[in-house]
Amino acid sequence: MIKVGLVGGTGYTGVELLRLLAQHPQVHLHAITSRKEAGLAVADLYPNLRGHVDLIFAMPDDASLTDCDVVFFATPHGVAMRQTPGLLAAGVRVIDLAADFRLKDAAVFEQWYGIPHSCPKLLDEAVYGLPEINREQIRNARVIGLPGCYPTSIQLGFAPLLAGGRKLVDPRHLIADAKSGASGAGRKAETSLILTENYDNFKAYGVKGHRHHPEIKQGLEAIANSEIGLTFVPHLLPTIRGIHSTLYASILPDAQGTNFQQLFEQYFSNEPFVDVLPAGSMPETRWVRASNYVRVSVHRPNDGDMLIILVVEDNLVKGASGQGVQCMNLMFGLPEEMGLTHIPVMP
Amino acid sequence: MIKVGLVGGTGYTGVELLRLLAQHPQVHLHAITSRKEAGLAVADLYPNLRGHVDLIFAMPDDASLTDCDVVFFATPHGVAMRQTPGLLAAGVRVIDLAADFRLKDAAVFEQWYGIPHSCPKLLDEAVYGLPEINREQIRNARVIGLPGCYPTSIQLGFAPLLAGGRKLVDPRHLIADAKSGASGAGRKAETSLILTENYDNFKAYGVKGHRHHPEIKQGLEAIANSEIGLTFVPHLLPTIRGIHSTLYASILPDAQGTNFQQLFEQYFSNEPFVDVLPAGSMPETRWVRASNYVRVSVHRPNDGDMLIILVVEDNLVKGASGQGVQCMNLMFGLPEEMGLTHIPVMP
Amino acid sequence: MIKVGLVGGTGYTGVELLRLLAQHPQVHLHAITSRKEAGLAVADLYPNLRGHVDLIFAMPDDASLTDCDVVFFATPHGVAMRQTPGLLAAGVRVIDLAADFRLKDAAVFEQWYGIPHSCPKLLDEAVYGLPEINREQIRNARVIGLPGCYPTSIQLGFAPLLAGGRKLVDPRHLIADAKSGASGAGRKAETSLILTENYDNFKAYGVKGHRHHPEIKQGLEAIANSEIGLTFVPHLLPTIRGIHSTLYASILPDAQGTNFQQLFEQYFSNEPFVDVLPAGSMPETRWVRASNYVRVSVHRPNDGDMLIILVVEDNLVKGASGQGVQCMNLMFGLPEEMGLTHIPVMP
Amino acid sequence: MIKVGLVGGTGYTGVELLRLLAQHPQVHLHAITSRKEAGLAVADLYPNLRGHVDLIFAMPDDASLTDCDVVFFATPHGVAMRQTPGLLAAGVRVIDLAADFRLKDAAVFEQWYGIPHSCPKLLDEAVYGLPEINREQIRNARVIGLPGCYPTSIQLGFAPLLAGGRKLVDPRHLIADAKSGASGAGRKAETSLILTENYDNFKAYGVKGHRHHPEIKQGLEAIANSEIGLTFVPHLLPTIRGIHSTLYASILPDAQGTNFQQLFEQYFSNEPFVDVLPAGSMPETRWVRASNYVRVSVHRPNDGDMLIILVVEDNLVKGASGQGVQCMNLMFGLPEEMGLTHIPVMP
Repeated sequence: MIKVGLVGGTGYTGVELLRLLAQHPQVHLHAITSRKEAGLAVADLYPNLRGHVDLIFAMPDDASLTDCDVVFFATPHGVAMRQTPGLLAAGVRVIDLAADFRLKDAAVFEQWYGIPHSCPKLLDEAVYGLPEINREQIRNARVIGLPGCYPTSIQLGFAPLLAGGRKLVDPRHLIADAKSGASGAGRKAETSLILTENYDNFKAYGVKGHRHHPEIKQGLEAIANSEIGLTFVPHLLPTIRGIHSTLYASILPDAQGTNFQQLFEQYFSNEPFVDVLPAGSMPETRWVRASNYVRVSVHRPNDGDMLIILVVEDNLVKGASGQGVQCMNLMFGLPEEMGLTHIPVMP
Repeated sequence: MIKVGLVGGTGYTGVELLRLLAQHPQVHLHAITSRKEAGLAVADLYPNLRGHVDLIFAMPDDASLTDCDVVFFATPHGVAMRQTPGLLAAGVRVIDLAADFRLKDAAVFEQWYGIPHSCPKLLDEAVYGLPEINREQIRNARVIGLPGCYPTSIQLGFAPLLAGGRKLVDPRHLIADAKSGASGAGRKAETSLILTENYDNFKAYGVKGHRHHPEIKQGLEAIANSEIGLTFVPHLLPTIRGIHSTLYASILPDAQGTNFQQLFEQYFSNEPFVDVLPAGSMPETRWVRASNYVRVSVHRPNDGDMLIILVVEDNLVKGASGQGVQCMNLMFGLPEEMGLTHIPVMP
Repeated sequence: MIKVGLVGGTGYTGVELLRLLAQHPQVHLHAITSRKEAGLAVADLYPNLRGHVDLIFAMPDDASLTDCDVVFFATPHGVAMRQTPGLLAAGVRVIDLAADFRLKDAAVFEQWYGIPHSCPKLLDEAVYGLPEINREQIRNARVIGLPGCYPTSIQLGFAPLLAGGRKLVDPRHLIADAKSGASGAGRKAETSLILTENYDNFKAYGVKGHRHHPEIKQGLEAIANSEIGLTFVPHLLPTIRGIHSTLYASILPDAQGTNFQQLFEQYFSNEPFVDVLPAGSMPETRWVRASNYVRVSVHRPNDGDMLIILVVEDNLVKGASGQGVQCMNLMFGLPEEMGLTHIPVMP
Repeated sequence: MIKVGLVGGTGYTGVELLRLLAQHPQVHLHAITSRKEAGLAVADLYPNLRGHVDLIFAMPDDASLTDCDVVFFATPHGVAMRQTPGLLAAGVRVIDLAADFRLKDAAVFEQWYGIPHSCPKLLDEAVYGLPEINREQIRNARVIGLPGCYPTSIQLGFAPLLAGGRKLVDPRHLIADAKSGASGAGRKAETSLILTENYDNFKAYGVKGHRHHPEIKQGLEAIANSEIGLTFVPHLLPTIRGIHSTLYASILPDAQGTNFQQLFEQYFSNEPFVDVLPAGSMPETRWVRASNYVRVSVHRPNDGDMLIILVVEDNLVKGASGQGVQCMNLMFGLPEEMGLTHIPVMP
């Protein structure tokens, strides 16, 4: 059994992690900390866990995190980077659901997250936890920076077109028109998030610039091994879970003969959690609700020169907590799918 | 033209009042104050008002409220009672959308709202602004305490059974099972109100005791002119607007022969905003969306001894701002329906 | 492994049954039939099942249902009763999710469902599949009539007050004000069910009389072993899943001293799927989303004579398919909780 | 007073038209026909109209449509084209909300709508009812083909970039990623439209080809007076009303110095219903809910070469019925805004 600790855990990625870990056959939930909710039973905050999770939120100092094999951080940006060096020194591995270990460049981190990075040297060592791209590195990682929710879907959608230096689409004008359910904004007391402001409504946000933009760019450039240009427009759906990314790429003249359906199927043929749909399919966010699956389809209307890729994921699972468990499985030599094969809830 | 001032106006009853007043043919919007948003254009906070409302939120002291004919308070509880005496002294009439002038007993006010009443003597003079019950008093009122949203629907639903000392139903066991859209909770930065906590969800709240309970009881007892017993359970709907009250009353043995459909039709026959539906109807909240209408139906399954009354209203219109305009029309000798005949928006 | 067949399966209780059975460690899904969708892969209709369910809908005659140990009917009312005698003769046990075996009186069945019962003699043998009430009978049953979704929540909520001939509340005036998500209406091509007609909306329906009324009455009278009077008003929530029943009962004078919290806790103390919440709790439908749990709280405002019981369930799980699996577990000597301990999905 | 007839009227654009026309100061609703609902009071089908519309659906032959000044068709595609010649002959003007008179090429109509056009000669005369583009022609039109909902928002969003032969953006790679509420699909008894299939869900549809594609292309080419290339991906929002179009266009090298904010403001400076938002704004669909306004913003992230235009409209008002009333006002010499200045309903 893997001894797991959780720092944070009062937010949505935290409760989702608890749901997954509590049902994982090889996990022992050892400790959970929250400065704000110390003393409260986890199941009192999240009654869905009643009868399944008996833990009580502990003060950070009281929790024996250093006894754990791995510690997840489901905290605001900036917390993990302060505690990670100590945990590593104690031989504990770290999986951060926030942004502390996503970006390779500390200056870019500071630019977008507004705080200087406290352990920039660890950024080189930290592995970007997208198993479909970095599986082998994840196995041996001590520190995982889990991808953001949008970046997961967008990188997986573009990857087959860019990987291995393929010259299939114009890399300078990639467009990601992405839509996310409101849980992506977290569990925060903000007027802009209340139901009355968002129900029966739809809007774009962050058009000027969004924190996930540099992360996606960095990831796609690593996949393509060359510079790319990306336009990224996130939108807020009046739903709880689910991201739907609609991706646009112009097919290069020399690549007009490509069978893109086949390309995608082959690229993901061994992936347990990426489901390339039959040609013509249009995935729905509910097809992956509460599951770790990503479903992708690729379209080329009228055999023209525009390629459209549709990607759906559950932002709290494959876009966050499930991906964390997937990385943990890899890090501890467990079957990659263990504890993650829950069938999506539909309807 | 009536010169109207608005104190508050950043909340949902405020913006709804602005929507109604800006389209009212006899209203001149003179001033609007908000300590928090002073300097901000109203239409920047509520872009639906762009092109229709040019006002800018002013600091309370800067606004020439005493120049107005009437001032509406769309403020938290406790604000109106502090400013009302001064306004009255200046000859300005007051319509309060909060609870400051609803309850007749200052001790009950303090018990439920947690603050002592600052002008208890005005409670006698203040008129409870439910036109269907107190129309004549409203005409001459200087101070109106507008009913709460639940109380409006519940009092109108029970009124035909209790008015004039009628002995039709058991007055000791009235039950109001009420459901409200989330706008009833206001525009507040609270975690419990965010979309992710409420969408695809339903719950009761305030079962132990809700501020509207003493108000409804006071109102029904005034209508019945005798003591009544009420069980009131509010529930939170994952919708924006709309209250649906399901009312239960046991028919007394001597009243078994009553034609309740006819009773309701006659009681409301001259009411411009209360629509008694044909027998067998089941009203939907969308039938009154964004309008000042209340729709009511009365049911007696299997000719048994239980009467069920279904009432729908828009909590922001007839349950708040629309009712305020209806009272204003009465107070200033205008046709009662002026500016309030907007057809409900459906679908 | 239990060999399981499924007749129907294109509706919501069908797909939910497939989700549960496909993850059940002791079930082999053997056959699934649908006249309308014969030839279609189940996962093409419900893509959430992709990679988990490989079955193809077969024509009723092609399916080797008689090879099964148990056959579930997730069909419209009237289908199961025609096929059950043949299956029983072949030694196959039957669990019907429709109403064919719920009511004991064939005349009442015909009155409410509009068709004569084709095997009224089986009604005596059929067991009403509510494990909390009929656990021992279910173990040995050949035919199970699963309770309706509303009846499950309402019977469980009133049971502690009525069981064993207790005289705690007035049995003549029980009130159940129940609210259900739209999945309870099934997957039907009806204008009244489309999103545009129901979103941001709320209404009562079936006030005149609902098919579940005689079923609940029959169930409560069996529990109480005496006649009861019930007023039942169902309402339609603009949500997918979830039933919230608000139950009202008048405490009898001699029972005023009862500790109702304790009564409920003791009554359900050994139940794996009924969670009596701490005093003062108000359950939310999301607390049981996609799970087999029922959560209950009991309230007595101001120590008065009205008792309020709040019950939430997922109508597709404990209100239908999960309850069917629970019965199957009992019938085949498996642990009652097997395959049913999925943690509710929240948020 | 203009004598108005309505053919159809049982669908959502029909009821919205009735809501607008019943509140229009210069309209007399003379007749409404529906084969399916003949004999039914309009307000029984749409109770929001109770007290405002007394009309009864008449059989097509019984209605004195030829007495009208103008007849609106809110019917399925193919109905208006059969009745229009007769009405024109009787001196009645026609406004079709369906697609019968949108496309100029009868062959394209037949290709996309599956039926031959019955009066192709009228296609030349028919005016495409987008006032911001064709105002003068509309004034004198006998037959108006109203734009589809998506086409309205997309044409208005791209128009300032293409009008007058401007060479600002690459006309071959225009992208419109559009999202619409479910009312756009109409009031139909289809399983795919029911709430349980769409709530808490999001998907693209029609990626292979959508009927609005040729219409938008035709419109944009008329505006640009040259060929354009368009990728159009519609998506279904789990909301009732509202379209949000996110438009992408690559700025041409010679146009990098353009002030696009100013360009949009000038282009629409005299338009009563198009509101160009301040720089940096991100419009929300609720900002125009139940109103005839369109709100637009234009973005150029990092002063790069990609332009993003955000457009919101209410698909039932500016995207259908409101636009019809706007055309009617123009056709009958009334102020263009008459009956259309309802303030959007928010929240």
